[in-house]
Amino acid sequence: MTTRILTGITTTGTPHLGNFAGAIGPAIRASQQPGVDSFYFLADYHALIKCDDPQRIQRSRLEIAATWLAGGLDADKVTFYRQSDIPEIPELTWLLTCVAAKGLLNRAHAYKASVDKNVENGEDPDAGVSMGLFSYPVLMAADILMFNAHKVPVGRDQIQHVEMARDIGQRFNHLFGKGQEYFTLPEAVIEESVATLPGLDGRKMSKSYDNTIPLFSNAKDLKDAISRIVTDSRAPGEAKDPDNAHLFTLYQAFATQNDAQAFRDDLLQGLGWGEAKQRLFQLLDGQLAAPRERYQQLLARPADLEDILLAGAAKARKVATPFLEQLREAVGLRSFRSIAQASAESSKKTVKAARFVSFRDDDGSFRFRLLAADGEQLLLSRSFADGKGAGAVSKQLQQGGAPDIRVEGLSFGLWLEDDEVAKGGLFTDAADRDAAIERLRKALEPVQA
Amino acid sequence: MTTRILTGITTTGTPHLGNFAGAIGPAIRASQQPGVDSFYFLADYHALIKCDDPQRIQRSRLEIAATWLAGGLDADKVTFYRQSDIPEIPELTWLLTCVAAKGLLNRAHAYKASVDKNVENGEDPDAGVSMGLFSYPVLMAADILMFNAHKVPVGRDQIQHVEMARDIGQRFNHLFGKGQEYFTLPEAVIEESVATLPGLDGRKMSKSYDNTIPLFSNAKDLKDAISRIVTDSRAPGEAKDPDNAHLFTLYQAFATQNDAQAFRDDLLQGLGWGEAKQRLFQLLDGQLAAPRERYQQLLARPADLEDILLAGAAKARKVATPFLEQLREAVGLRSFRSIAQASAESSKKTVKAARFVSFRDDDGSFRFRLLAADGEQLLLSRSFADGKGAGAVSKQLQQGGAPDIRVEGLSFGLWLEDDEVAKGGLFTDAADRDAAIERLRKALEPVQA
Repeated sequence: MTTRILTGITTTGTPHLGNFAGAIGPAIRASQQPGVDSFYFLADYHALIKCDDPQRIQRSRLEIAATWLAGGLDADKVTFYRQSDIPEIPELTWLLTCVAAKGLLNRAHAYKASVDKNVENGEDPDAGVSMGLFSYPVLMAADILMFNAHKVPVGRDQIQHVEMARDIGQRFNHLFGKGQEYFTLPEAVIEESVATLPGLDGRKMSKSYDNTIPLFSNAKDLKDAISRIVTDSRAPGEAKDPDNAHLFTLYQAFATQNDAQAFRDDLLQGLGWGEAKQRLFQLLDGQLAAPRERYQQLLARPADLEDILLAGAAKARKVATPFLEQLREAVGLRSFRSIAQASAESSKKTVKAARFVSFRDDDGSFRFRLLAADGEQLLLSRSFADGKGAGAVSKQLQQGGAPDIRVEGLSFGLWLEDDEVAKGGLFTDAADRDAAIERLRKALEPVQA
Repeated sequence: MTTRILTGITTTGTPHLGNFAGAIGPAIRASQQPGVDSFYFLADYHALIKCDDPQRIQRSRLEIAATWLAGGLDADKVTFYRQSDIPEIPELTWLLTCVAAKGLLNRAHAYKASVDKNVENGEDPDAGVSMGLFSYPVLMAADILMFNAHKVPVGRDQIQHVEMARDIGQRFNHLFGKGQEYFTLPEAVIEESVATLPGLDGRKMSKSYDNTIPLFSNAKDLKDAISRIVTDSRAPGEAKDPDNAHLFTLYQAFATQNDAQAFRDDLLQGLGWGEAKQRLFQLLDGQLAAPRERYQQLLARPADLEDILLAGAAKARKVATPFLEQLREAVGLRSFRSIAQASAESSKKTVKAARFVSFRDDDGSFRFRLLAADGEQLLLSRSFADGKGAGAVSKQLQQGGAPDIRVEGLSFGLWLEDDEVAKGGLFTDAADRDAAIERLRKALEPVQA
């Protein structure tokens, strides 16, 4: 079986070399593995939570889409789309909103961090907190559950959100899953081995430290940035200490093992920092030149990028549209035509109910089965020495414990057919249904014992 | 100008006579007034908050749609649709979720009532509260703002939600409305005169009191219910007290003034309760027979009802689809093609900027205008005795206060054109933009003074 992996991509900012080495590159390589069905999406609905600058949203979506494609993501092999091109996602978000407990969202780390900060500053706990920030895990659950992803690669801070998606999906399955699990419950996958690239000053490369190396701007910018990498003051000819030089760490992250070893040896033998920087530049420029060229080409043809993403959305909606239809059906947002059909069938008395079927087993004993309307086996009786015994219990079940009902079965919960069903409906009162299930359960006890 | 009125209809339960007299009937009559453009929708996304019984949701939607149409709602004149047939609504809900403050939702009465009850019972404040219950006012805001409704008829308990819709709409206008107000801010309309119909026992007719008179079931049910209306024990021949007889109140609610007067006189002159009930039955049956017949016909042809509602949805989406496109554009969820166009225009140097235009006024004086890129007048100068004076100030504005910027205008907030714009973008840094606006404002002061 193929494993479906879903990766959301934040669309604020422009990726730098650290993002590429730490997240984008490994994700693209993962998409090239056999046996996986990868979904990658630009999480632009999420971006709206933190950014009310339309121009920035727009530019970031474009640059990030171009970055992933330039980096080698194969839009034909994977499903690559913008979240905001899938209208099924906000609709599913609402269906999940109705089953998600508010208490669950209260415990979200990101929200709690905002509250703690407000309280610390003597502000109202929810000061400056938007509903977007608060309910964002429900949207994320919809992102994941919409495509029944098995695995969701995330950073540690996102594990809780995947767990919430499980929780919400499970609750929906429980409430509406009549004999079927609508949603696959996703697992978070933590990339433990993700290398954190050092920035110019040796701290983690991050926009907030202003120590980044640009990814796809141009060779000159790359060279300029590399020239600003902080080193110690050992002169050319003096032996360097590669293990404490983040310039070496950067080199190592992109070089083959042999090249890294050679670079290390040269440093130990006194390679000057200026020359070392030149070699790092050559290494990076050699690797980035081709994708940079692709990146610039993609950016120059936004209409082509648009086509690629719209094709991805169409591919994603081939999954999402029929699945959402099933989910709408499950919660009761059904076409009235289905009532017309049910009534027609009912008036023709062809509504199938669950039924008891007796049979003789291989060992010569007698048993009966309780089959659901769709033929699924709900129950297999113990064996009886003669057909009479089996028939008596089967009859008792059908008449004794629950004289006026027949059973239309589900995996464990049971729908009960009565007048309401004959009219094309089902129980409208949950208490009635529960009472009937209870009676039935009692009736089943002698068989289960 | 026509007034757009939007009415949401809850889709749980089956309407009774009290609902019809108090809410449905008046609303249908209101839809027949000239100069109004009425939107009526089955609020089935809302129904999911309170009801996890799919069959009940389905049946209630059907019965309520049939009730309104049987009651005289003209689906050709008004726009009558199911909320769940408009995928733009959940999408708009997300856009609004991102601008709605959580603190606003914390103050919603319905949510607070649940919290108070939980606290009273010593439970967790959010016990049993779903995200649906909590965020429901955002969905309601989307219902209203999607169609730019001017007026929303609601019960007193819903006024707050309409105010929240105003608040959220205003915030969106403020954040993204560059010179235009995207959303009309709706007003709640309280139907003060709504008659509350008494039930069988004289208390308000309500399902929860089990004292309702059925609306469209059949004549026998109607008669049975009327026979159970509680009266005093005065015998036939004894004078009755119409003002203290809810049987009379019921009669009066449906009769012409003359008929009600005649009934009143007869009661005062000793009309027996049995006969009085017979006359109430005749009155109601006479009025309900025709719509009841239509109701039963509609229920028997659910596929036709489906067609009516789908036609209504298509009508509603003629408004919703292009409007949502504008809103997506506003927040930055734009087609990449628009970037292609902007870049092309920019490279052809045809980007239009705001411009100063001098002219001679009717009184012979000289003035100048500041026009936005789209030609909208942003500013009209005071009059100058000669063209030279006007030119000097205009020049000062263009060079003096803000030497390096040209202005691309909006109604009050201003976008500033600079290198960023020339490249097809706009300011990405809000602080930069604000600083530039401040400089410009200063530059404008001499003109305003």
